[in-house]
Amino acid sequence: MKIVSYSIREDEMPALKNWEKAHPDVEVQVESELLTPESAAKAQGADGVVVYQQKPYTRETLQALHDAGINKMSLRNVGTDNIDMDAAKELGFQITNVPVYSPNAIAEHTIWLMGRLLRREPEYTAKIAKRDLRWAPEIGREMRMQTVGVVGTGHIGRVVIDILKGFGAKVVCYDVYQNDQLKAEGLYVDSLEELYQQADIITLHVPSLKENIHMINDDTIAQMKDGVIIVNAARGDLIDTDALIRGLDSGKIKAAGLDVYEKEVGVFNEDWEGKQFPDERLDNLLNRKNVIVTPHTAFYTETAVKNMVEISHNCNVQLIKGEKADNTVELG
Amino acid sequence: MKIVSYSIREDEMPALKNWEKAHPDVEVQVESELLTPESAAKAQGADGVVVYQQKPYTRETLQALHDAGINKMSLRNVGTDNIDMDAAKELGFQITNVPVYSPNAIAEHTIWLMGRLLRREPEYTAKIAKRDLRWAPEIGREMRMQTVGVVGTGHIGRVVIDILKGFGAKVVCYDVYQNDQLKAEGLYVDSLEELYQQADIITLHVPSLKENIHMINDDTIAQMKDGVIIVNAARGDLIDTDALIRGLDSGKIKAAGLDVYEKEVGVFNEDWEGKQFPDERLDNLLNRKNVIVTPHTAFYTETAVKNMVEISHNCNVQLIKGEKADNTVELG
Repeated sequence: MKIVSYSIREDEMPALKNWEKAHPDVEVQVESELLTPESAAKAQGADGVVVYQQKPYTRETLQALHDAGINKMSLRNVGTDNIDMDAAKELGFQITNVPVYSPNAIAEHTIWLMGRLLRREPEYTAKIAKRDLRWAPEIGREMRMQTVGVVGTGHIGRVVIDILKGFGAKVVCYDVYQNDQLKAEGLYVDSLEELYQQADIITLHVPSLKENIHMINDDTIAQMKDGVIIVNAARGDLIDTDALIRGLDSGKIKAAGLDVYEKEVGVFNEDWEGKQFPDERLDNLLNRKNVIVTPHTAFYTETAVKNMVEISHNCNVQLIKGEKADNTVELG
Repeated sequence: MKIVSYSIREDEMPALKNWEKAHPDVEVQVESELLTPESAAKAQGADGVVVYQQKPYTRETLQALHDAGINKMSLRNVGTDNIDMDAAKELGFQITNVPVYSPNAIAEHTIWLMGRLLRREPEYTAKIAKRDLRWAPEIGREMRMQTVGVVGTGHIGRVVIDILKGFGAKVVCYDVYQNDQLKAEGLYVDSLEELYQQADIITLHVPSLKENIHMINDDTIAQMKDGVIIVNAARGDLIDTDALIRGLDSGKIKAAGLDVYEKEVGVFNEDWEGKQFPDERLDNLLNRKNVIVTPHTAFYTETAVKNMVEISHNCNVQLIKGEKADNTVELG
């Protein structure tokens, strides 16, 4: 059995080598390049491919894979928006993805953003870099003393809540689908408005469904406590960035931690050093000492990457063996 | 009743104002300057003083206070090393301190140091400052996957353990005095050597007793796992700094988070910007991307400062009223 794994990064190699060791019956051909109409020919003679890229999987690319005798494709990530689904269906593709690789990676990153903002870390980091080692006046706050509003109590939101409980923070949460245990603990409030009114820190863990887009806007910010901290490691379009900046300017919002940004595609995961930075609003946020922007790195842990590599290769083997695969993607 | 409060900082004022509001029978005279033989005269006519400074309380200073009619002195902090105890006893002083103001402030700071190191935050911060927004190759690790060795299970160590449990981390701990609950949970190991062998992260929460000085040295570092992370928000002299640097140079120690440093007195809480930095070893540590040094700021939270202000003033009132004070310091 042979699998060609495209665009494998350096940091994926340890996990991939481990997987190979546990599967001596599978030959893995590692390719550093992306899957394109040209590189698809490298899969000739293999039984399936494992892939991960932001670049589109076009009809041309899928046709080239098909011509190389491949119709089993396993994604190492969640998103399938970049697949030409009509072409995939017509060409008889079977596709899997990795819908959950590590809720903890994202939940923990969310907590680290809160901690750094509560203790005013960017201000200290700048002072210490200049060798100003005075501790006043950047006094910090304790997590234990905060009321944290968790919007969305799926996989990630629930891990966030578990961690917050360990700190002794007060948690209030909201979701249209309530979790039985959290409900029994009395942690739900009845409306987002109620959550906004109570929370010292608000953290978002909902998908970017149509009804959630720009849920953080001028009107909802007005419902929040003065000096609120907002954290978003979910989806960029949940926040109206202009409203966020207005809130930061007025002081209504004390601080923000953002692992996502509405216009992040094509800006995050690129090196802009020495080049014209393409987004003025993002630059504005990056320059503030009370804002931390991380370029969509919340997911990026050894555990998450290991899960992405292992689950995707396991699924590809299932497809090749003609078994029912764990994470089959519905085509269209 | 009148209290003179010396060297009150800006960030202490909100807590002090709150305390005054709750004690309308007490007149508080706020002085921004330190207590010295000269400033002691300002306490003339008062009933007691509240103080906090690193500068010594010399015989001369205490004599000047005595001459102003004052022998009731309440410290806003723990440490009493800088008091001339013989003079205090001879002059009939009654002294209180604040032995515990917020174990959470220090425990949380310890956890933030761990999180920043696990997610390689200093490396990202440097990249992002240059507008390099690529996420690879600085892959992070999850707290949930770590075994954390907690050395010392007093007030602070126990809060650290509670928080770590919320993350789902594995905890092992060591103390000569074992806490019953932690013992029942089976978290203690029998020796420091055992803890060093098991822990991915080691955090210190013990006092700097003679037997603890340089407990982290070449020999004990050799007992640790390759790639260990060491965190110290307790006392600087627990770590042999030269051995720490050797461990960082060899890669044996992957990262370190330090809120204390053996030679911190006279260096921390000073502004060295544009001046000759006085400590080459500390400069060496400050320049490393896998080391975070914070200048003894772990304690510095609104909650801790509030407690320091309130407890010290409450104690001073108790002394003035002739009651048994909560935190009486034994003189010599």
